[in-house]
Amino acid sequence: MRGYSMHKDDYQRRLARIEGQVRGLSRMIEEDTYCIDVLTQIASVSKALQGVGLGLLDEHLRHCVRDADARGEGDDKITEAMQAVARMLKV
Amino acid sequence: MRGYSMHKDDYQRRLARIEGQVRGLSRMIEEDTYCIDVLTQIASVSKALQGVGLGLLDEHLRHCVRDADARGEGDDKITEAMQAVARMLKV
Amino acid sequence: MRGYSMHKDDYQRRLARIEGQVRGLSRMIEEDTYCIDVLTQIASVSKALQGVGLGLLDEHLRHCVRDADARGEGDDKITEAMQAVARMLKV
Amino acid sequence: MRGYSMHKDDYQRRLARIEGQVRGLSRMIEEDTYCIDVLTQIASVSKALQGVGLGLLDEHLRHCVRDADARGEGDDKITEAMQAVARMLKV
Repeated sequence: MRGYSMHKDDYQRRLARIEGQVRGLSRMIEEDTYCIDVLTQIASVSKALQGVGLGLLDEHLRHCVRDADARGEGDDKITEAMQAVARMLKV
Repeated sequence: MRGYSMHKDDYQRRLARIEGQVRGLSRMIEEDTYCIDVLTQIASVSKALQGVGLGLLDEHLRHCVRDADARGEGDDKITEAMQAVARMLKV
Repeated sequence: MRGYSMHKDDYQRRLARIEGQVRGLSRMIEEDTYCIDVLTQIASVSKALQGVGLGLLDEHLRHCVRDADARGEGDDKITEAMQAVARMLKV
Repeated sequence: MRGYSMHKDDYQRRLARIEGQVRGLSRMIEEDTYCIDVLTQIASVSKALQGVGLGLLDEHLRHCVRDADARGEGDDKITEAMQAVARMLKV
């Protein structure tokens, strides 16, 4: 079982909202909305995306890493999780 | 004229692709894709979003700020642009 | 004249404080301070550093870019400033 | 035993170098170095700081969280680690 499957609906609701926000960005540009207002909205979408990422990472640590730990394979999972955090920080 | 209206199609193409990527994220979760792979994809979407933001900021500095400068109102525009950069950095 | 030379003392005061905070981090590790507390302090130092960066960028836009603009070389300066913002966002 | 005590020297060497870099930033401003070059150097110092943070987080997950897990207190430690990641992402 994958960790975040527990809250699958929750992730999908959040992603559906983000998808709507991205469509909204396209509309803002279509309507020549003031650039700074588009930038504010982009910051809000990025934050929402990072929220989904943090949720996945949380579940990953709570489930995948622990399950792997029980099989003596936790170290690789932690390395993998750390690489994911490093990628999140680079964005 | 708003600065980035010059490349309107370009922004909309990029945003349409991001929208597709967000839909892809939802599908990945639907199909129980391994969390780390979803996180990698989230980092890629965030980067694409930041790219759109940088494009808007670039046009803003090249057009809105200069136009405002010509009217003697450049300082307020720069303050506003800096606040937008600060918000982008906080994400 | 370089833009931020106006507030030179201010930047140096802020950097002296950051230097002290980095020394404090070293002491925290020397004394086996709890990792999460060290991480909180690192986030605070990073934020202070970004603050200095935002200040420099602000002055850059207000002075160097405008001076270059008056000489018809503003476009290159904006490109350069945007590359600096992109680097700040990647960290 | 705190996890990162294993590499204490390593952290302190890295922090000593960061401290030197911050001092270098102060010197750059003292000498009116071109703002964009100072910004490039700030990005490099921030990256080095984040590297120290990632190292601490890695050790935290490998040691503190596992030790807590063995005592049945792992969940709180993961929550705490996730809050630290969220703070790192906000910078």
